[in-house]
Amino acid sequence: MRGVFYSQSGDFLHWHTHLSARLPNLDLEDHQHTMDPEAVDYALVWNAPPGFYQQYPNLRAVLSMAAGVDHILSDPSLPDSVPVLRLTDAGMADQIAEYVALGALVHIRGMLGYLDQQRRQIWQSNENRQAQATTVGILGPGTLGRRAAERLIALGFHVLGWARQPRLASFEVHTGPGGFERVVEQSDILVCLLPLTKETRGVLNARVFERMPPNGFLINCARGAHLVLDDLRSALNSGQLQGALLDVFPEEPLPDGHWLWSHPQVMITPHVAARTMVDDACRQIADNLVNLAMGHNLTGQVERTKGY
Amino acid sequence: MRGVFYSQSGDFLHWHTHLSARLPNLDLEDHQHTMDPEAVDYALVWNAPPGFYQQYPNLRAVLSMAAGVDHILSDPSLPDSVPVLRLTDAGMADQIAEYVALGALVHIRGMLGYLDQQRRQIWQSNENRQAQATTVGILGPGTLGRRAAERLIALGFHVLGWARQPRLASFEVHTGPGGFERVVEQSDILVCLLPLTKETRGVLNARVFERMPPNGFLINCARGAHLVLDDLRSALNSGQLQGALLDVFPEEPLPDGHWLWSHPQVMITPHVAARTMVDDACRQIADNLVNLAMGHNLTGQVERTKGY
Repeated sequence: MRGVFYSQSGDFLHWHTHLSARLPNLDLEDHQHTMDPEAVDYALVWNAPPGFYQQYPNLRAVLSMAAGVDHILSDPSLPDSVPVLRLTDAGMADQIAEYVALGALVHIRGMLGYLDQQRRQIWQSNENRQAQATTVGILGPGTLGRRAAERLIALGFHVLGWARQPRLASFEVHTGPGGFERVVEQSDILVCLLPLTKETRGVLNARVFERMPPNGFLINCARGAHLVLDDLRSALNSGQLQGALLDVFPEEPLPDGHWLWSHPQVMITPHVAARTMVDDACRQIADNLVNLAMGHNLTGQVERTKGY
Repeated sequence: MRGVFYSQSGDFLHWHTHLSARLPNLDLEDHQHTMDPEAVDYALVWNAPPGFYQQYPNLRAVLSMAAGVDHILSDPSLPDSVPVLRLTDAGMADQIAEYVALGALVHIRGMLGYLDQQRRQIWQSNENRQAQATTVGILGPGTLGRRAAERLIALGFHVLGWARQPRLASFEVHTGPGGFERVVEQSDILVCLLPLTKETRGVLNARVFERMPPNGFLINCARGAHLVLDDLRSALNSGQLQGALLDVFPEEPLPDGHWLWSHPQVMITPHVAARTMVDDACRQIADNLVNLAMGHNLTGQVERTKGY
């Protein structure tokens, strides 16, 4: 079984080494190498360019090198019949949970204000919030969101979740459009961990910020396209939102001179909230390649109509 | 029973209101009001000036409005026989625990580096650390330190403590000079929650920073005088320490133009890690005033020879 690898950010040799350790007969080539496209059985990809998949007429699976698959599903050249597989944890849950906990603590302890005061050499104490009086709404309580919720609950926060469909969770999860409103209306801190789909594109917008309790905080570690940036700017400047911690952006790297870089109410990280741990990722990928070869059930298979 | 109140930062009427709610016959006056000094039974104080206590020859107790009592014990005018009482929680444990958790997450997620990159509009991902591969050493595992340890353990950190004398704790606590070395040598993050005494003044110094594992992080939310600032600067600039989160300073407010304000590896807060929650504080103070009037045992009584 032969595979093709595409990533601009992941190193081919690094991934090949980790996968070969689990699959001694691995036959995986970087896309730049000459090979017979008709002999390619699977693609292991991150952000392949549009039209990539039509080069390989006999694809039996496309495996994402991370949790997101929007970069795969957005390519119209991929036949509907090819299974698309996402990573479901790969060391990302703990990282996301830490990142979200960090953002929540930054908010309740007013750190964005203190950082701004430090820049301006101002010594002034401001009001604290208390975790136990703060509700965090997690949009997308999947594997990553549930781990984040656990950590937040251990820190004393009240946690709500919103999912498209009912889910088993150790905290209150609302569903449907009415449930979405109820979660937003109670969330002092809103965390986006949703998959990017037609329905969720632009879901973080003025209408949502207006319904949140005053002086709210936004944490986006899903995709840049979930957030309407002009609406964020208005909400920050009007004081509806007190701050935001953003890991993802419509254009990455974030362009030079973009207003987000220098807004004192915004903390930015360069898409590092959950970096794929190559070894953890390769465990799941190797299992799926064996499943594919043996005709067994695949894990992390995306429902193409839902988009995740 | 009559009391005198002294604080520049706490509002007399605010404290009086909260205490009166618990003690309807409260007889407490601000120090600026004329009263018979010989009739004063107790002092409720924060940072009273040297010589303050010698005005009141019949003091039966001095109550601190916070956890620290160094501001009281450093006054030679206070007779050894007068009990000094400190607050043992008053809502401070949760706050300290949040502050320490925030600092630990800031460190392992490289936020000081990302904040500096944001200022300079640089998009670059750096290595993460993992909580489970990070040891936090808590110097002073009292009520506040134990709560901090609980939160850190819930976030996946490994926690060690150091105390002068053996203590019951749910984590490994070392004692004595040898134990101090063992904790320092293992602590990627060192947290100071010690009382300020003759023995602990300057305890955070070059010798300690040299013994910590490389790229360490310091969190000081005890007293400014615990830390030798010149040693901190050398350790930051040499890279021995990667960063510091500081809430307390030798001189407060931190003077204009001080190097700490603008050092990119230092995050500063203006002595707000644990603000006294007046209502929680007044519960403990009211209980102690009743104990004092009734001749019962007092809580939070400081051992004058130990200094805490």
